[in-house]
This record gives sequence, C-alpha cells and structure tokens, in this order.
Amino acid sequence: MNAPHDLPAFALARAANASLAEQLSARFAERIQQRLLLPGARLPSVRECARRHGVSPTTVVAAYDQLLARGLVEARRQRGFFVREPRELAALAASPVKASAAGSRPPPVDATALIRGMFQGPTMASPGMGTLPSEWLDLPLLHTALRRVMASEVGGSKQATSLQYGDPAGDIGLREALTHRLGDLGISCAPRQIVTTMGATHALDVVSRALLQPGDAVLVDEPGWAVEYARLTRLGMRLLPVPRGPQGPDLDVMRSLLQAHKPRMYATVSVLHNPTGCSLPLAAAHQVLKLAEAHDFVIVEDDTYVHMAPPHAPRLAALDGLQRTVYISGFSKILAPNWRVGFVAASPELTERFIDMKLLTTLTTPALPEQAIAWCITQGQLRRHTERVTAQLDAARTRSQRLALEAGCRFMTPPQGLFGWIDVGVDTERLAQLMLDEGWLLAPGTLFHATPRPTTLLRINFATSQEARFWRALEKARDKL
Amino acid sequence: MNAPHDLPAFALARAANASLAEQLSARFAERIQQRLLLPGARLPSVRECARRHGVSPTTVVAAYDQLLARGLVEARRQRGFFVREPRELAALAASPVKASAAGSRPPPVDATALIRGMFQGPTMASPGMGTLPSEWLDLPLLHTALRRVMASEVGGSKQATSLQYGDPAGDIGLREALTHRLGDLGISCAPRQIVTTMGATHALDVVSRALLQPGDAVLVDEPGWAVEYARLTRLGMRLLPVPRGPQGPDLDVMRSLLQAHKPRMYATVSVLHNPTGCSLPLAAAHQVLKLAEAHDFVIVEDDTYVHMAPPHAPRLAALDGLQRTVYISGFSKILAPNWRVGFVAASPELTERFIDMKLLTTLTTPALPEQAIAWCITQGQLRRHTERVTAQLDAARTRSQRLALEAGCRFMTPPQGLFGWIDVGVDTERLAQLMLDEGWLLAPGTLFHATPRPTTLLRINFATSQEARFWRALEKARDKL
Repeated sequence: MNAPHDLPAFALARAANASLAEQLSARFAERIQQRLLLPGARLPSVRECARRHGVSPTTVVAAYDQLLARGLVEARRQRGFFVREPRELAALAASPVKASAAGSRPPPVDATALIRGMFQGPTMASPGMGTLPSEWLDLPLLHTALRRVMASEVGGSKQATSLQYGDPAGDIGLREALTHRLGDLGISCAPRQIVTTMGATHALDVVSRALLQPGDAVLVDEPGWAVEYARLTRLGMRLLPVPRGPQGPDLDVMRSLLQAHKPRMYATVSVLHNPTGCSLPLAAAHQVLKLAEAHDFVIVEDDTYVHMAPPHAPRLAALDGLQRTVYISGFSKILAPNWRVGFVAASPELTERFIDMKLLTTLTTPALPEQAIAWCITQGQLRRHTERVTAQLDAARTRSQRLALEAGCRFMTPPQGLFGWIDVGVDTERLAQLMLDEGWLLAPGTLFHATPRPTTLLRINFATSQEARFWRALEKARDKL
Repeated sequence: MNAPHDLPAFALARAANASLAEQLSARFAERIQQRLLLPGARLPSVRECARRHGVSPTTVVAAYDQLLARGLVEARRQRGFFVREPRELAALAASPVKASAAGSRPPPVDATALIRGMFQGPTMASPGMGTLPSEWLDLPLLHTALRRVMASEVGGSKQATSLQYGDPAGDIGLREALTHRLGDLGISCAPRQIVTTMGATHALDVVSRALLQPGDAVLVDEPGWAVEYARLTRLGMRLLPVPRGPQGPDLDVMRSLLQAHKPRMYATVSVLHNPTGCSLPLAAAHQVLKLAEAHDFVIVEDDTYVHMAPPHAPRLAALDGLQRTVYISGFSKILAPNWRVGFVAASPELTERFIDMKLLTTLTTPALPEQAIAWCITQGQLRRHTERVTAQLDAARTRSQRLALEAGCRFMTPPQGLFGWIDVGVDTERLAQLMLDEGWLLAPGTLFHATPRPTTLLRINFATSQEARFWRALEKARDKL
C-alpha cells in the first residue's frame, strides 16, 4: 500500500510507443495540470533534467519545446523554463468576473492548488498525507453502523430521515452523543448548543462566515493549515499570523497584533496542532482567554485531532465554558474521512447564528452518517477503535521518529500525535518535487505558512513514514540539492 | 400524514395541569422561538385572541404578561404587543463581533428565520413545503442502492472510498452518469466539467463565492427563493430583482439594470421556476443569452425541478453550450432530500475554480450517496421512479387546482410542476399565522420577494394541497381577515 511500485511508473519507458521526449513532456504536463508543479515554478535545467532521467539534453530540449508549444511553460531569457499561469486564469484575467477582483489574482489559489495536488497525486499512503492510512480504519464497523441506521429508518415510528430535509441543527441522536463526549473533555454543553456540519472544514467555514465581515482581521497560528488560511483570505479577511511553538502562541506578538489590528477572531488548533503536534499548555490557555476577554475576540478552537490527543490536554472551550470559545471537531481523522461529519459547539446565541449560516450553505446535512457515527459513539465502538488506532500510532511514531533521526532530520517540536514537524536541511519545496519523481508525496513547509517562503521544514505523517525505503529516498534526494 | 390531528393539539386543554394562561403563553413562546412569529410581528389584540381561543380577555392579558416577563414580547403604547428581537440578537448588538457589521443587523435573518420555521414547524406534509411528501419517495430503492455501493466498497479492487477524502470533483461514476443525463437535455459536457456538491444549495454557494466579490451586483428573478436571496445578500452582493412571469424575465427591466449596475451574474430557475412554475420560453432564453453576451455576465441556471419538468423545456445551458452558463441541479426533489446530492456543470475553466472553492467549503463530498444515486441513474431506476412520481403529481395538480379554484383562489400563472402561485385575496403573512393555529404550514408570498412587502400571494405545493379540509380551513381563515 505504501509502496512506490503501486504508482504509475515514473521511469521513462524506452520501449514505449511515445518518444522519450513525448513521455517526458507528458509527465511534466500532467504534473502541471495536477498542480503539483505550480505556476511560477522553474523546471530543472536541461542538463539536470537529462541527468536525472538518463536521457540526452536534446531529448529534454524537445520535451520542453513541446511544453512551450502547449502553452504550459514559458522560457525566460538566461533563466530557464517556468510554469505559466494556467490558461483558464489567463483567460479570466481579461474577463469582467476577474476584473471585479480589482485586477489581483485571488491569493489562495496556490494553497488550494497544493491541497488539490495532495488529492490528485498518488493514491498511495504518503508521508505527506493528512489522514490515517485507510487500512487503519474500520470499514466493517462503518458498514455495520450504516446498516443499523438504515434498518431503523424503515422500522422506526418516525418518518425516514432520508426522505425529508431533516433538522437544520443536525441529527439529534448525534448531538446528544456528542454532549456526553464533550462532557468527558470538560466541556459542558447541551444538544441545542451543537450544530453538525460537513466535516470540520465546513464547520470552520460556517463559523467564520457567521461571525466575520470582509476586511476583518483574524489571528491564526503560524505554522498552520493552508486550507484555513486560504478560506479566510478568500472570505476577504486579513490574516494575522502568530508564531506557534511548544509553549503555545507567542503572546507578545499576539498582544501587539491585538493593539494594532483589533482582530475579531483567533482560529487555532489548540491540541495536537497541525503541523507541530504541540498542545497548548494550561497556563498559555489561561493567558489566551484573558487576552480574548480584554480585547473582546472570539476563539475558534479546532480540535480535529481530539481522538489522538494525550489524556487531560486542556481545551480552551472547557476553561471558558463556551463563552467566547467556539469548539469544532469531527470524525474524518478517526472514522471516515469521506463521510464528512463534523460539528460546532458554542453558546446558545452563537449556535442559532451558525444554524442560519449552515442553512444558507448546505440547507441541512445527511442524517444517515450522523446517526451511524452516533451509534459508534453510544455503543462504545468509537472508544475501542480509538484505543486500537492510538496504540498503533504510538508504535508508528516511535519507529518513524527513529528513522527520521537516523536520516539526519531534526525535530522542531517533541513528537506527538499524527504529525512530525522536522527540519531536513534543504528547501522542502524542491525536495518535494524530486521525491515526487520517486513516487513519494510530501507536505513541504510552505503549505503551513500564511506567507509562502522557502523553508527547510517538512510535515511527516508518523503513520505513513515507517518505511526505511522512504527515508533512504529522502536522503538521496536531499544530497542532490 | 397530512392531517392536522397528527399535530400537537393546538386547542387549549381545559383539564390540563397548566393554567389556560400558561398554555396560551407557552404556545406563543414556542412559536416565537421557532421563529414562526418573527421579531416585530404584532400579537393578536386581546379581544381577538380571546375570541379565537375561547378564553376570557383576562386569561389573554395574563398570558401576554407572562410573555412580557420572559422578554419575548414588548408592549407599545396604544398599539399592542409585539415580538421582540431575540435576546441573542440584542446581546450581540452590543458585542464587538456584531459591531463589525457596521451596526446593521444582517439583512437575511428574516429569510433564514422563515426557512427555519418551515423545518422546525409541524412535521406533517404541509401545503407550504418545498419537497414531495416523503411517502411519494422510494426508501427501499435508496437502501438497495446504498447496500450495493457498500458491498462494492468491500469487494472492489479499489480502496474503500469512505476511508479516504475522495476525489475533490466528486465521484467519477456519478459524474459519468450525469454526463449522459445532461446529454438527454441537450447539454453536452464531459465528466471533468462536473463538480458534485451537497445539494443544489451548496452548488449555488460554491458558484457565487467562486465568481463574485462582495459588492458585486447580481440579477435575480422576482418572485424567487428566499434562501438564494439571503445567501447572496450575506455574501455582500447587491440584489437586482427582475420581474419574472410566464414570458420569462422582464427584459426591459433587465436591460436597464444592466446599464445601471453592470451585474456580474444572473441567477435563475429557468424551468419550473419557484414559485411560479413557469418555464422560460425558447425565444426569451435566446434574448437572455444575447444580453449575457453583450453585457458579459454569467448565467447560473438552477434546474432543481428538472425531474418534474415538461419534456423539451429548453435549458439556457443547452443553447449556450455551457459557455457563459453554469448549470446546477440535484436529487433532493426527486430521490432523497436529506442526502444532499447536487452538482454544477460548467466550462472546464470554471469547473476548476469551483473545485477549488468546494475544497475550501467542505473539502470533498461523501462518495457513498453519490455512488448510490449513480446506480439509480444507470440502472434506469431513477427514470422509472420519476415516471411514477410525475404521474402522481399530474393527478395531484389537477385535484389541487380544482380545489383552489373552488375556494375562490386565482392562479397567477398556468399550473405546472410542483408549485402553484395563487392569489388568495388577503395578506398571506397574516393568513399563515391563522392557519398555523389550525396546524397548516403555508408558504406566504413574502418568502419569495427580494424586498419583503405585504402580498396576497401564496405558494402551494400541489402534492400536499389535495385535501378539501385544507381549503375549507383556508376559506375560514380568510374570512376572518
């Protein structure tokens, strides 16, 4: 499953019908179209490309000419070949729809492009992926749960939920089950304080649209998750990155940003932060809440990694009693990434506003998967599954950590949870391109910076970085840079 | 199922433990909380309320006093009792989050409140509802389809789709099936021109967020659907209502709006328009496309009612070849309202932008229901089910139409499809409140106006307005006004 040999062959096939130049050009074209090579990226020099693929420079020049002819790259004098803006964007730049954006290209395209690359790239479990490998998940459990709720839909006294729009707040059974789970985390809330969503991503979208106006400033952790940066930017918000480390956000930076910009919101992953794996210390949590009180902003606490979290990690929502904190989580990381079940918990007042916004975005959410997950929770299946997964993850983390250290990588933060945040000593954007040639999809550090910049940092998924082969490939690629 | 006696009793129970005043006050409180009585609405006069419920004026005064004490209503000298702004909104008005909205209450709360009332109100099939009654739908078909795709998830050669994020564009099987279906409508497009969404509502949201910037002007049909008005308004767009009748949009109005406001988009339900039931004549479609060309705007064609549509109704997307038209539809009206499966079809360039935006809003969409619906399409089950439903709807329309005419109502447009747009001769907002007392949920005309104003128009659902009892109740309520 993790093996590169499951991938379409990346080596050029000398016996194939297409010429070597055509194959090489097709490979670059595919990568550009999948946006694994982004607009503005430089292609390898002719000499380097020839060496890397074991072909003659003439073949490379022919391949690059084909890319030029297709309009995918452009030649810049003395500098080499660069990926062009996709034709669609170029065309749109001349269109009125585009012009309305005050002539500027929407900033987050790069981020979403990178994310899409992660989806459209190799379907293997990769060190760069953001979820557990699918073989760690429990498909029979999901199917059992789904069959049960389907059966109850037929036999139950109430009308079949599939056949009506359903409750705008989400399935009441799931909201009741969540109330108990949140109680275990010290967050006391009633079912009417919970709104289900299409995964945590949708929850973050609903919350930011309900609470913010275009032009508002928002504090975000940096490093942090590019999709979140991209969404807020697309909504017209001004991002205020706050450095995030093992001790939590840099409070001095936060204070000066608060003074200067009066942000309305702080969006943060407090526990098992992505990508550093750090959890907010209790004292820092207290300080953040005091600042929120003093400067009157809302905290959006994204607890996506709750099921892998160390016991007793404090939640801002628990300290605060959901007064100025909005709590978000979901089941994509532990049960079913594709089912897209997440939720928001908040004060009753805010909950009402989130329901209104949810109605405008998706009307309601499907009840069947929500009921199936409620069943997993109430039957204790989620707990048992979580115990199995976390034990497996602990073992994987130990192994991946050892391999990373042996490969000369340095951990920026103590290894915890699903992700390791490591320094590999070379530019990870370029490293990612080289590794892709070998069939490994990486998550370079640029994915986690609000303002893209070259970085030697890399996020690894402990569960999918356990192969010695991967680390050997990484060492080899690093030596080339 | 349609019977008011399935509802919680609306008559006051003289033998109950709670006093009559408490019962009366509780009933008003519930209606205010469900937002079936909106902020600013006037309660009936003490005398009228006493008469209506067969209690003494003293009882009514006691009930109103209880509502006053709970802060749900306020007394205005010489004018009576009025529903207050909900406490949450009042509290937010003082908060910084609220203040950022430049002091103004977000305009669409009323619309979403009305929509929520439709969800939270009686669960019976009501003349005001927007979907087919659930007993017309085919739960066994849905379950069969779902079981089949679950089985293929286990036995198939590919990885289980539930356990990965999935394709950002949506399930390829559904997109291929849709390609064929759209071909039948004269819309030729490839699977890569289709993006699946969480129902048509999500599709409209993704499209408007991808194509518009806050402040942009958007043409909308009036009458039209309040959720669409509300979403666009919340996104910061300026609505430009264009009167819509049997001949299509008023082109003179459209032309002058185009001159004055340079809208970027025209959002329209071209076939079986909600609420009028009108379909765009071919000549009007051609004129609209010519205007779109001349004034360079995008047409978003919402074909939600496609499965109930008359044969050969022309689609803008077909005429235009998906050049400036974005086509949206879904399966909530014909198969499974709660599954939330919809899609967008557009030019390849726009499709890419929609996928990016979909990623920011929900990451991906669940593949299981998409695959189940693909199965229903490819096995011919959707077609067979649609034939059954449309035959049933034709019979219902004939019957409901006759009853409406006998009740003295006038059809504003020729009866077609799911909805009738009728004039009942009295203010339908007040009529809806009276009818609610009898257990009937109506969709008053204000729900369909971009700028709310009193109206004597009402949308009825032909499928759920077949009971003579309903029309008798309506006549009785009308006579009281």
